Amino acid sequence: MNSSSGSSGSSDSAPALFNYYDYSDWYDHLEPTEPPVEIVQPCDPTADDQLYHISIAAISLLIMLILVVFTKQKRLCQGFQRGSPSVLKAVNFLDQTEHQGLVLAVFGLVFCKLCVLVITPNPLPLTKDSTPATKELWKILAIFYYPALYYPLLVCGKLRSKLGYLLGSLLSWTHFAILCWQKIDCPKTPGIYKYYFLLNSLPQIACLAFLSFKYPLLLFKGSEGNGKTNTSEDLDSNYYKDYVKSILKKKPAKTSPSRTEKPSISDRISDTLKSYIYTPEKGFRLPLTVVISGVLSFIAVYQVCLLLICAVIPILHIVRAGINEDIAFLLLGFNIILHEDRQEVVKIVIHYTWCLEICYICAATLSCIVSLVMLMRSMVLHRVNLRGLYRGEIYNAYSCQRRIRPSQPGVVSWMGFVSYQTAVICLGMAVQTLVFFLGFVFVIFLVIIPILYGQNLMFFIVIGKLWPFWLMLFLVVAIQHVTAQFTFVKKDAGTRDLANRSGLFLLSYLLFLVNIVVGVLVGLWRMVVTALYNIVHLGRIDISLLNRGSELFDPGYRCYAHFLKLEVSQAHPVMKAFCGLLLHSTGQESSAGQKIRDAEEGIQLVQQEKKQSRASSARRARARWQLLLTLVNNPSLLGSRKHFQAQGTESIFNGSLNRAAKDGSKKSTGKASESTAAK
Amino acid sequence: MNSSSGSSGSSDSAPALFNYYDYSDWYDHLEPTEPPVEIVQPCDPTADDQLYHISIAAISLLIMLILVVFTKQKRLCQGFQRGSPSVLKAVNFLDQTEHQGLVLAVFGLVFCKLCVLVITPNPLPLTKDSTPATKELWKILAIFYYPALYYPLLVCGKLRSKLGYLLGSLLSWTHFAILCWQKIDCPKTPGIYKYYFLLNSLPQIACLAFLSFKYPLLLFKGSEGNGKTNTSEDLDSNYYKDYVKSILKKKPAKTSPSRTEKPSISDRISDTLKSYIYTPEKGFRLPLTVVISGVLSFIAVYQVCLLLICAVIPILHIVRAGINEDIAFLLLGFNIILHEDRQEVVKIVIHYTWCLEICYICAATLSCIVSLVMLMRSMVLHRVNLRGLYRGEIYNAYSCQRRIRPSQPGVVSWMGFVSYQTAVICLGMAVQTLVFFLGFVFVIFLVIIPILYGQNLMFFIVIGKLWPFWLMLFLVVAIQHVTAQFTFVKKDAGTRDLANRSGLFLLSYLLFLVNIVVGVLVGLWRMVVTALYNIVHLGRIDISLLNRGSELFDPGYRCYAHFLKLEVSQAHPVMKAFCGLLLHSTGQESSAGQKIRDAEEGIQLVQQEKKQSRASSARRARARWQLLLTLVNNPSLLGSRKHFQAQGTESIFNGSLNRAAKDGSKKSTGKASESTAAK
Repeated sequence: MNSSSGSSGSSDSAPALFNYYDYSDWYDHLEPTEPPVEIVQPCDPTADDQLYHISIAAISLLIMLILVVFTKQKRLCQGFQRGSPSVLKAVNFLDQTEHQGLVLAVFGLVFCKLCVLVITPNPLPLTKDSTPATKELWKILAIFYYPALYYPLLVCGKLRSKLGYLLGSLLSWTHFAILCWQKIDCPKTPGIYKYYFLLNSLPQIACLAFLSFKYPLLLFKGSEGNGKTNTSEDLDSNYYKDYVKSILKKKPAKTSPSRTEKPSISDRISDTLKSYIYTPEKGFRLPLTVVISGVLSFIAVYQVCLLLICAVIPILHIVRAGINEDIAFLLLGFNIILHEDRQEVVKIVIHYTWCLEICYICAATLSCIVSLVMLMRSMVLHRVNLRGLYRGEIYNAYSCQRRIRPSQPGVVSWMGFVSYQTAVICLGMAVQTLVFFLGFVFVIFLVIIPILYGQNLMFFIVIGKLWPFWLMLFLVVAIQHVTAQFTFVKKDAGTRDLANRSGLFLLSYLLFLVNIVVGVLVGLWRMVVTALYNIVHLGRIDISLLNRGSELFDPGYRCYAHFLKLEVSQAHPVMKAFCGLLLHSTGQESSAGQKIRDAEEGIQLVQQEKKQSRASSARRARARWQLLLTLVNNPSLLGSRKHFQAQGTESIFNGSLNRAAKDGSKKSTGKASESTAAK
Repeated sequence: MNSSSGSSGSSDSAPALFNYYDYSDWYDHLEPTEPPVEIVQPCDPTADDQLYHISIAAISLLIMLILVVFTKQKRLCQGFQRGSPSVLKAVNFLDQTEHQGLVLAVFGLVFCKLCVLVITPNPLPLTKDSTPATKELWKILAIFYYPALYYPLLVCGKLRSKLGYLLGSLLSWTHFAILCWQKIDCPKTPGIYKYYFLLNSLPQIACLAFLSFKYPLLLFKGSEGNGKTNTSEDLDSNYYKDYVKSILKKKPAKTSPSRTEKPSISDRISDTLKSYIYTPEKGFRLPLTVVISGVLSFIAVYQVCLLLICAVIPILHIVRAGINEDIAFLLLGFNIILHEDRQEVVKIVIHYTWCLEICYICAATLSCIVSLVMLMRSMVLHRVNLRGLYRGEIYNAYSCQRRIRPSQPGVVSWMGFVSYQTAVICLGMAVQTLVFFLGFVFVIFLVIIPILYGQNLMFFIVIGKLWPFWLMLFLVVAIQHVTAQFTFVKKDAGTRDLANRSGLFLLSYLLFLVNIVVGVLVGLWRMVVTALYNIVHLGRIDISLLNRGSELFDPGYRCYAHFLKLEVSQAHPVMKAFCGLLLHSTGQESSAGQKIRDAEEGIQLVQQEKKQSRASSARRARARWQLLLTLVNNPSLLGSRKHFQAQGTESIFNGSLNRAAKDGSKKSTGKASESTAAK
């Protein structure tokens, strides 16, 4: 609105709105023959990119070797501890309690590199030979190169040894220093916009700064724990115990409003608003994978918004700077005469391009805001879904009965979830910006500008010509509503009934044709609502864009549904709390030699149980009671119990138990079975 | 496919496909200076339209007056029978067992008139003054005129008297004869296509022919029944009794396959196919409103398809006939050189317009087929929904708990349902044709023609250039599926579990960036699937185009949901069966004078019950037992019982009961309360 209130030259209002692109002087000293575009010279940073990447790749490889040797040596020293972390186990996505910051920062780094390599002329910096023929190939290689490059940063954090933290600090400092050096050396680059690559690398710098800060902190805090049970740290965490405690705690009886009492409108509005704002709740943490997807989506919104602005606005500026009196002749060629004076034509065209720019910036901003709101809503919904599934409310999440267990599509979807969510939000933003831009252009050029200048009122003329039509429709709809309210629905002694049936039938018949016309408008409104709704929700894969019955035809939602199944079946907090409790109790009871063997597995419990047949019956009774309570509160665990196996319900717990009984030396990570507690 | 296999001139294949538009000679004797378009002279039928409408409107009015006098007279003779049908109660949409044919035919007639008046130059035939200024006004008046014009045809059938049938026969014969006469007189009309108005009036002729046949049949069959209980004929119908019997009948225990046994693929395919084919089921009839919407949708498909074809194809023919060597110069102006020889250019352009025509016809046919399939599927779904709601399965239909009772938006939606469904299917077909046409054009011009002629392979060149990219994506996705199947998911002793977790986490991390690229494709696929799904289902208001949680934001589906509520609450077959039984039993028991008073209401039962306190206890026990069984089988009726009223559940039955107790002389149509049976 503001944008159109200025004069057609708008030389004074534009700089006030956008100081950043200070193009006010272009209007004053319009020199069409020499567009005042700054030519940015290619800049080679002192820290040459190729050299830097070759050396840092070598250093990373070296660090990996050191870590391999170190862990091997440690393993020899503590020969009994077979489950110690190897360098190939840098991140456990199924842990909720790890230092999530490190993982998030590394994922953020890798993702930012993808944003760069899509548009950079030199995608793989290890080589400088980037002819168009090989460029595609380098891009493909780069997609695999960057995750490998940053892998040591993950491993160093996972080892939980001082050496790991030290190496991690060194590595992150190197990365951070070189990146900063390069950006200070060459803030401007040729290409779509001179500062684009600088702005683009801000999230990278933030991630690296976080790592450079976190590693030394870990090093000096000395939170080593490298001696004992470092892998079951997740299971020992208080989070799972607190979760179980909060379930077992008797809830205060809610004073729920009686069924007949309707919630007031203000309550409903505040409920709706709350459902769009994510506030962390005590006693519940989102899984690591979901947190990663959230953070990456946030970075993606920033990157896409930056790209959308930088790719279009400078071009619009160049176009506007190039507008001269030739445009009048060009328009004349299409029989368009904006004004008789050619200088006026130039002013009008410049004003129109300026309006276009405003529309575009508004559209990009709106799509950015929409994406962020949707991201928050997603997080709320993730929590609701996970909580529901933990409690066994499968029907609410899927609207049909499903088995919660790992499956082949489940594993594939689980691997892709974070990536798909990130990609889809990028795509969603692009589509949203396009659609919103068209909408804004329509509103500005067909509604606002005509109103302000009193010209080209085609839209209003068309609407106005049809006034008898609109009046008729309005009257007909109003008549139907009024008669329905006062004549056909009768409230009597607290009941509602249909009255005056013959009148209702007669009116239905007589208004049948008019209602078809109303129906066409309803159909159009339906199309608009559906299109807008789907475009707004395009960036979320946690809801399906399709109808209730066909939800799973939406590939994004299908991925999410499978992801949830694997996540719930493998990282149920109650299960983890049980595993932690069991490990703890065996640790207290058994001898020191057998203490933590196969700690990671939790599977030695079976063998130990055989030996320890002298377990007190009081303990067994207590265990049974705990099991019962937990099962009552988490029915979804019920299907995973041993007794259900014969009936076709397959169990992850029993699966691991059987396997463990057959081959005690096999490996799997952090889980156990509560069935043992039931024996 | 076939269309493109001909030569570029395609002078031999076209006539084989479309004999109807025989334009083969246009190719042979191409005379560009004189396009061989037949000029259709305006034709005034001997039976002048204005005269015809003035006289038929007068006759209709006369018939209405005769009927009013007749019913008044009858009412005086049978003074006690207050509930006799007046001329204002021509159709009861809540009856399932009326002569549906008459109602359907009249609705079809009225709808066909709407199709004509939208495009005819003279929308209201009562006047010939149709300047553009008044034309809009006449159109609006015509929308109200036609339903009123055909109203007597409905009333004559409803009266169930010989006089009514006789007048109905005369009226329908007149309409039919004049329409046929006009069409034979002037088969060709100027306008979009010479035979358009003839083809357009075929459904009208069919409807009128049905009426002209049905009324004499009713007259000679002598199914009078005008003496007694003609209004409760619906309640006396065997349909409701049969419905209750089929519910009360003990079902044979189904040998359902055990839960672990999955249905085979062929079973699933046949189930899916069956769910798209509507076959009438014994013991269940769709409500009249639904049947009307189905028939009107069918007529709408025909009319829209006709309009789509007639509005475009003749224009394409005229354009093609006008193509001459000038086109080569015109294309040269846009720097397009199709061929050096100008004759060749003409041939190529003609071939391209011919391809466009094929695309358009295919698109229109496809959208027609899609609409018909969707219509059948709708009918199946209507039945499923109604059956479910009769049984009280509210959650299945609405996915949330709702009260089944009349309400203001419910009544408005109920009035609009038939019209909205008809309008939406028209709109859906138009959008489908447009989208399918664009799709066909894309396929023909970018895929099929390039393959056939080996030219303009841009599409394939672009795809081909990216082969390393496609190969990489394919390999990555394949690797994920294969490893998931064989490495990460482990089947052991009938259970499934996750194995090699560290490998899974490592692969997830390393393939993170590639999966983002896969995710972009998934997002694009998601957009295509969503758009196609919604476009295909646009013409159906019985499913929502929105996501599960936001279903009711879709105005079409909202209307349907409200419609179902009113329909179920007011025309539950079990309720109607009870009403019928009660009327019957009181008819046997009470004296002749009191026999049928307030038969329509069923409300006199309460007062009678007070008098007849000598009802045998055996009868009461039987009634209670019947009530119990029915309630067990129809839990949705439970909420409507008297005892529930105090708890806030409001009841339509009790509503009428209370009203009846207060004011026995008030009127409402065909219902009663099973609560009386429970006393």
